[in-house]
Amino acid sequence: MHTADPFLFQLFFIFVWAKLFGEVFERLHLPPVLGEILAGVLVGPYGARLVVPTDAIYAIASIGAIFLLFTVGLETQPKDLIGVGRISLFVALAGIAVPFLFGFTYMVLRHHATHEAIFVAAAMCATSVGITARVLGDMRVLQTLSAKIILGAAVFDDVLGMIALAIVVGMVSSTGLEWAQLLLTAIEAIGFALIMMFYAPRVVKRMEPGMERMSTQDAPLIIALAICLGLSYAAVKVGMAAIIGAFFAGLAFAEYSPRWNLRPRLFSINEFLAPFFFFSMGARLNMDVFDAKLLVSAVVISLLAIISKLVGCGLPVLYSGWKQALKVGVGMVPRGEVGLIVALVGLQMNIVSESAYALVVFMTGITTLVAPPIMKIVFHEDMVLEPPLRERRRTAM
Amino acid sequence: MHTADPFLFQLFFIFVWAKLFGEVFERLHLPPVLGEILAGVLVGPYGARLVVPTDAIYAIASIGAIFLLFTVGLETQPKDLIGVGRISLFVALAGIAVPFLFGFTYMVLRHHATHEAIFVAAAMCATSVGITARVLGDMRVLQTLSAKIILGAAVFDDVLGMIALAIVVGMVSSTGLEWAQLLLTAIEAIGFALIMMFYAPRVVKRMEPGMERMSTQDAPLIIALAICLGLSYAAVKVGMAAIIGAFFAGLAFAEYSPRWNLRPRLFSINEFLAPFFFFSMGARLNMDVFDAKLLVSAVVISLLAIISKLVGCGLPVLYSGWKQALKVGVGMVPRGEVGLIVALVGLQMNIVSESAYALVVFMTGITTLVAPPIMKIVFHEDMVLEPPLRERRRTAM
Repeated sequence: MHTADPFLFQLFFIFVWAKLFGEVFERLHLPPVLGEILAGVLVGPYGARLVVPTDAIYAIASIGAIFLLFTVGLETQPKDLIGVGRISLFVALAGIAVPFLFGFTYMVLRHHATHEAIFVAAAMCATSVGITARVLGDMRVLQTLSAKIILGAAVFDDVLGMIALAIVVGMVSSTGLEWAQLLLTAIEAIGFALIMMFYAPRVVKRMEPGMERMSTQDAPLIIALAICLGLSYAAVKVGMAAIIGAFFAGLAFAEYSPRWNLRPRLFSINEFLAPFFFFSMGARLNMDVFDAKLLVSAVVISLLAIISKLVGCGLPVLYSGWKQALKVGVGMVPRGEVGLIVALVGLQMNIVSESAYALVVFMTGITTLVAPPIMKIVFHEDMVLEPPLRERRRTAM
Repeated sequence: MHTADPFLFQLFFIFVWAKLFGEVFERLHLPPVLGEILAGVLVGPYGARLVVPTDAIYAIASIGAIFLLFTVGLETQPKDLIGVGRISLFVALAGIAVPFLFGFTYMVLRHHATHEAIFVAAAMCATSVGITARVLGDMRVLQTLSAKIILGAAVFDDVLGMIALAIVVGMVSSTGLEWAQLLLTAIEAIGFALIMMFYAPRVVKRMEPGMERMSTQDAPLIIALAICLGLSYAAVKVGMAAIIGAFFAGLAFAEYSPRWNLRPRLFSINEFLAPFFFFSMGARLNMDVFDAKLLVSAVVISLLAIISKLVGCGLPVLYSGWKQALKVGVGMVPRGEVGLIVALVGLQMNIVSESAYALVVFMTGITTLVAPPIMKIVFHEDMVLEPPLRERRRTAM
């Protein structure tokens, strides 16, 4: 009899554990992604050690992250950005500046290295629109002004967040903090973003007739996957993170995504790959680092993460009343996968320590858990009173 | 600046090379799968060494093989087997027995080890219905009796082939050729096949209401993937190959595949993973082993592979004329991925040498290339004369 293949063993059990915890979280009306991460924490190498991921699993997890960010990019349509207007842009900008300032200041005051402080602060800037959009959708309040501002701001936030990450990675890669170098990286990243948003879709459009002549079945999906992998590789090659390239590749295809039916196809691929990414996120979390001191830091960082988004995102809409400000602020609180990925990039670059990584995962968990119930309270007045019966189960969340 | 990630580099270039060769082959009206394999031969470690796959890539390739065989299983509906009746079963059985006999005898006469001879002979048994079905579909002759017999026999062939592979793997894993052990393995494999075909679908049916209650989005896909990975792992654990478990998992879900929309979802996953598998197949082919002696063997094996299917599959239908026999025989000639996977399993178990592996890849290529043009000649009389205009391009193959 053969000794069982350790890779297949891990493949099976990680998938099952992640999905099992995801299902439990879903039933408890909590974000399933947190369940998949918790699976990694509990059964992973720092937990019960039931499954200790090998390099091959981490490789698969990294493909999962790439396609996840590609999908985020696909959902970020440049024309939406132009539509939502200036308020959303201000909400996004202040919603990045304030958390970064709060986070960076606190981390430096707690004597963390500057580079590490920058990464943790950058992770605090991200907004995960997925969870907010789902809660607002379930409450059927997506048509309110607040909801529109939030979703618009979250789109800006994704783009700005990726530019910020590119700058941060560029910054810590160079020797010391040279301002000329920093400016150059910033211009590069912004230029890259603008090209991918406004020029690349035109290139894609010009490729379309050629694609239809191609004999390969499903040419658009193949081309999209190839360009996603290519830009991920190119991003690493020029000193950025792979996921930045993947996100911008998504932007380039966003306009054509509905016509080419890209999203449902990537969705199937993500269904298989993403659990490995989230499980790995949890598996890298060393629970032993949580001593009393770090726990205090974690709670403070989480509070700062909540308050800073409330303040930063609320301020630009304060002119229309504090209730509006509160709604927008709360809607921008959840961090989700983008924040986690920022922390992971830092961990992989050996800039973020295990304990700072733990801080970010903790903060992401708290902000993601805390926001939905508060959203339900503040958006309650906008709720359509009688949702159709067949959707009641979902709405009961 | 970072050194570029070798994994991402390989991921991108293997995908692009494989798809590029696939596209070229498609344009030349050749099976794209052969193009993807050729990409691995030409740019891989034994060719131009542009991309040398690492373990992580081989790991991804092995997932590709698992989902490929799962899809083959999904397409094998037990009720089709009952429908096509006895003739197809006889065609399949003789189409396995004759090639095995021919192959085994020749390999032993050429002084190959018994185990190796068994593997090469087993690879000669497989029939790849994909290429045949496509050619017949393009010619619009799928409704002829010959076509129905071929497609029915190919379904039996898949199931019988997997049982044969299970027996072969079990046989060479045990010490020597013990007949009692062999009988036990055979009974196990056949029992496993029968359970997965006739009992498992009922279990799946009973799971259905529970699945609908599940909160996880897309529960059927998740459950199907989990069971596919689980059975693959279980198969390895009991001493079979992972793909055998994957194939039988597919059988269990075949009946529910249309209702749960499993095929298009797996298709997207395969679109991404399968090129890594086929490229890796090519990348393992050492062209240096092809000396004059091996080339003679390769040509003889290829001829035997063609003749044995013509004879084996033709005989059972000879009562209705030699033309009918020829049609059925030619349709069963292409070997495709199942034969390759059998050879790969042998290579990974260190039973099949590099040169025997090369024999099988050569034989697969020849049988797959030779069959379509001959099919076009023998089926020409059955062709519907005026295909609709918009399908003419495909039909022009």
